Amino acid sequence: ISKVCETYSLKPTQFHALHSRSAAAKATAYCPYSRFRVGCSILTENDQHIDGANVENAAYPVGTCAERVAFGKAVTEGHRKFKAVAVATDISPPASPCGMCRQFIREFCELQTPIFMFDKDGNFVVMRLEQLLPLSFGPEALPPPGSLPARG
Amino acid sequence: ISKVCETYSLKPTQFHALHSRSAAAKATAYCPYSRFRVGCSILTENDQHIDGANVENAAYPVGTCAERVAFGKAVTEGHRKFKAVAVATDISPPASPCGMCRQFIREFCELQTPIFMFDKDGNFVVMRLEQLLPLSFGPEALPPPGSLPARG
Amino acid sequence: ISKVCETYSLKPTQFHALHSRSAAAKATAYCPYSRFRVGCSILTENDQHIDGANVENAAYPVGTCAERVAFGKAVTEGHRKFKAVAVATDISPPASPCGMCRQFIREFCELQTPIFMFDKDGNFVVMRLEQLLPLSFGPEALPPPGSLPARG
Amino acid sequence: ISKVCETYSLKPTQFHALHSRSAAAKATAYCPYSRFRVGCSILTENDQHIDGANVENAAYPVGTCAERVAFGKAVTEGHRKFKAVAVATDISPPASPCGMCRQFIREFCELQTPIFMFDKDGNFVVMRLEQLLPLSFGPEALPPPGSLPARG
Ligand SMILES: [Zn+2]
Ligand SMILES: [Zn+2]
Ligand SMILES: [Zn+2]
Ligand SMILES: [Zn+2]
Repeated sequence: ISKVCETYSLKPTQFHALHSRSAAAKATAYCPYSRFRVGCSILTENDQHIDGANVENAAYPVGTCAERVAFGKAVTEGHRKFKAVAVATDISPPASPCGMCRQFIREFCELQTPIFMFDKDGNFVVMRLEQLLPLSFGPEALPPPGSLPARG
Repeated sequence: ISKVCETYSLKPTQFHALHSRSAAAKATAYCPYSRFRVGCSILTENDQHIDGANVENAAYPVGTCAERVAFGKAVTEGHRKFKAVAVATDISPPASPCGMCRQFIREFCELQTPIFMFDKDGNFVVMRLEQLLPLSFGPEALPPPGSLPARG
Repeated sequence: ISKVCETYSLKPTQFHALHSRSAAAKATAYCPYSRFRVGCSILTENDQHIDGANVENAAYPVGTCAERVAFGKAVTEGHRKFKAVAVATDISPPASPCGMCRQFIREFCELQTPIFMFDKDGNFVVMRLEQLLPLSFGPEALPPPGSLPARG
Repeated sequence: ISKVCETYSLKPTQFHALHSRSAAAKATAYCPYSRFRVGCSILTENDQHIDGANVENAAYPVGTCAERVAFGKAVTEGHRKFKAVAVATDISPPASPCGMCRQFIREFCELQTPIFMFDKDGNFVVMRLEQLLPLSFGPEALPPPGSLPARG
């Protein structure tokens, strides 16, 4: 743990909070369809934790994931820089964020941001965003509006 | 206003809070692509207000709307019953929730729930959920799992 | 049936094709998670039928619905005007398109376009798009790009 | 090119078709909002090509990407095994599939499947699915239904 904290510039208390909060957030999931609970906790630049869980829908594609709930909260509360992301599920080995969430995270996090994935027993895997979504594109990739032909 | 409050069982202070909070929430939007700010405020059964705004993404379909951000927060904070929803934008006549958000709201709100749509000047239109999403389906519509053949 | 065809300006053969093709399209669904098959058939302005079915994903929100598969095909094959939409499922009463699909359809269909919803026995309900998605917004609703402040 | 074809078990004619078809498919995009055209072509196990392009929506999150249009077509036409995917855009360096599409593709393709990304001049980058979406989860990852507690 101490080595992990050093590698990713986190304090042990922050790491433990990421673990315990993401695990606790599972209890707030609304997932009657998949019955697959996911909890997420993110650590902002100024050391606040913001949590989320999956919220499903009878029309499956309309539901949303834990990571997007947490980042939706964080961004609309004014946060734009983040130190770490944690995701927890009830399976082992740990589940990773889906591709859609990796893309959502990409909009706001540096490529070096660590993403911790905790399994049901608290064991974890950690990867940086650039490892989970290589060759990604984000806000900087779109051509500036002026360079495009007028709409319609 | 007093007539509206009576029709929808709201106190005037609640109505005004729905208006001012949804309008204020526009300032929390992240919408560099559409530059179309949307704010949302929802009133829970126990008279709490929970707000949200749209959070866009360089991959447009990955972004999310104000209503889903607000309901994502509310549901993962334990709320399951709601008195009213308000949405505010910078145009006139007021914009309505997109179909995807109407479906997301449908999962958690009674069909009679009023949805207030405020324009840039504070004028509004109000419709009940069942009017915005007629003939809808929600959690009760899916066949119980036991009635379906085994997966795969 | 003949009255329905008259009301919605369809030939009986077109109506029957909408029914049989949307019902047949159910067999092409990929839905191991919900086990809820949906078939869709749309009739283009020049009397072509284009079909689709739901395609689900292990990450539920990443999946797509029958209607969006069918319209995705149709639009990328060059169609922009449509006479009717049909959806078929294995339940009764018939299921309606989810809100997300109503919005997707709204981009391309006139508000008067009929949407037929067939149940497992071939009985149906029909509503016009404007009835299924009242007070909707579409391509015409967004402010023209030039009227917005520069990005960033 | 011949080395690339050898590495990914493609014939040169197949590679050229992937390039020319994905580039041509850009012309079928409906993208009035981003004005960012994307074309996609996929090669099925039995050597059929199926193409798609992005189809946007006034409600940005409701739109869909080229890759999901193409796979939606392919899957509902009965294809379940694929040899290669190609994506083409009007920028350079080439754009990669968004995270949501990587997840959609993950449901149907082997991890070794090559994904070609062509830029505006026909130059390309190629990566295998497992490189674009490492540590991914797919259909095999979800616990079998019977192992979960009853819904609700
Ligand atoms: Zn996700
Ligand atoms: Zn919306
Ligand atoms: Zn749908
Ligand atoms: Zn995509």
